[in-house]
Amino acid sequence: MSFLALDLGGTKLAAALFNADGEILQQSTFPLAGRSGTEVGALIIDAVKQISRDAALSAVGVAVPGIYRSTTATVWAPNIPGWDDYPLHAELSAALSDVPVVVESDRTCYILGEVWRGNARGARNAIFISVGTGIGAGILADGHVIRGHHDIAGAVGWLALDRPYEEKYRSCGNFEYYAAGPGIARAAQERGLENATTELVFKAFEQRDERAVAVVEQAVAYWGMAVGNLVSVLNPEVIVFGGGVFGPAAGLLEAIYDEALKWAQPISIRQVKLVVSALGSDAGLYGAARSALSQLPNPKSTIPA
Amino acid sequence: MSFLALDLGGTKLAAALFNADGEILQQSTFPLAGRSGTEVGALIIDAVKQISRDAALSAVGVAVPGIYRSTTATVWAPNIPGWDDYPLHAELSAALSDVPVVVESDRTCYILGEVWRGNARGARNAIFISVGTGIGAGILADGHVIRGHHDIAGAVGWLALDRPYEEKYRSCGNFEYYAAGPGIARAAQERGLENATTELVFKAFEQRDERAVAVVEQAVAYWGMAVGNLVSVLNPEVIVFGGGVFGPAAGLLEAIYDEALKWAQPISIRQVKLVVSALGSDAGLYGAARSALSQLPNPKSTIPA
Repeated sequence: MSFLALDLGGTKLAAALFNADGEILQQSTFPLAGRSGTEVGALIIDAVKQISRDAALSAVGVAVPGIYRSTTATVWAPNIPGWDDYPLHAELSAALSDVPVVVESDRTCYILGEVWRGNARGARNAIFISVGTGIGAGILADGHVIRGHHDIAGAVGWLALDRPYEEKYRSCGNFEYYAAGPGIARAAQERGLENATTELVFKAFEQRDERAVAVVEQAVAYWGMAVGNLVSVLNPEVIVFGGGVFGPAAGLLEAIYDEALKWAQPISIRQVKLVVSALGSDAGLYGAARSALSQLPNPKSTIPA
Repeated sequence: MSFLALDLGGTKLAAALFNADGEILQQSTFPLAGRSGTEVGALIIDAVKQISRDAALSAVGVAVPGIYRSTTATVWAPNIPGWDDYPLHAELSAALSDVPVVVESDRTCYILGEVWRGNARGARNAIFISVGTGIGAGILADGHVIRGHHDIAGAVGWLALDRPYEEKYRSCGNFEYYAAGPGIARAAQERGLENATTELVFKAFEQRDERAVAVVEQAVAYWGMAVGNLVSVLNPEVIVFGGGVFGPAAGLLEAIYDEALKWAQPISIRQVKLVVSALGSDAGLYGAARSALSQLPNPKSTIPA
């Protein structure tokens, strides 16, 4: 028995074939190379067929960069042109006839991957905060993935953390404005670090450049408030930081915790652990695999639920 | 068949006997009259015995003013002296021998009550925000009550909404400091409304007293940010406001929504309805009844799940 995990990004498709023990047998990537709309769907089907030529697939799981709408079984992926409401589930199911297919948003896959095989292993209350060009969260509460009324739970980049409201938050949210990669670069540029990228800011921070220190401290303050808010609302046992910024910000978890400690419900905050993703850029693949596994009638008992 | 709901408060115990159709047959209250510790437990057992003398109980549900710790089956209720870790479930179960007993935190009961018989009827993603002397929330996500790692999810009074941190938030949280009843009264006093109570602030607000208007507008700004954050994180279809302050603040829902609209994930915020509790001070009883009902093996199909 084997099952296939796909992680679709804005520029490439990653694929991994898993065996019944949850180990990766084979991993491949396919550049999107400017494809859009149904071309991306065709690329996915070609990849599945190519990989499954020599393997009898029991299930396929797909992580998508956006929202999977469970009621219509369609995908909204803002970085893939033509994927406003893409019928990926129907397309894949038709191409794969009898093989069960499950599609999940990438943030859901991140937390499922970390709970299954990463740094939140076995947790029933866990949150993955992905900080890259945007900020989103995958949430597991009491063992259930939180999806919300229309599958857009976890939009934590929109957290309101600092009054008053300013128009510049309109396109991305208050938290994301200051604490995602582009916001960190922007804040550094505003302080005179010319042509600053997020990466350069963290290099300058390590060299104790005063402007970079101020920018990173501001980001830490926002990350800490967000952690505090998620802890007060959801009482998780572990929060996993991932995405491109964690990465270079991985050394800041203690400072983030200290900020959160000031704001959050005082018992809850002492029950939570902050960790960095163990799976890095493979978190989506592992989560997609875990989702595929959940489609099987009798998952092997060696694979932890 | 009948089942019993109890709602324990800081000063009184409310009890209601329900029939199999989910209708209240009889309702009573018992003042705590300064009781503490095991005396409160004894009062609860006396009340159950008195009410059940003529009724064969199928199940008992209890709402407690604090946290029900599911792992130890004990209650933490800060307003009842001696109830730091009170074994209410064991005591009641022993007294009732074969009748199933379920204990839930009051905020969990509030949302269960509103979903069952109130203004969130039938919703699978719904939040009850209780605003009184404190602020807490009961959360239903994808049909499941959110409890968290140690049953203290929903502590939304601790939401961080305005930088920088100030020491005065330490005992209650930033949101609760400004937007619970005592915070509203305090803000009015600071603006020169002498001896202001929450009730007086809302009376002065209706008469367009400038100081009261400023205080209420500040509370609306905080309620709006909190709604925005809960909407972005959880994508609910309905948020129910209850507690003593809603009540007089019930007319402010539109203003709160307008604030939330600025901050929240723009698609999610357009999918949510803000409403006031339909059940008022009976929300806890209805929720306790719904919890009791969930203990029965074959709930009658006439009672919506």
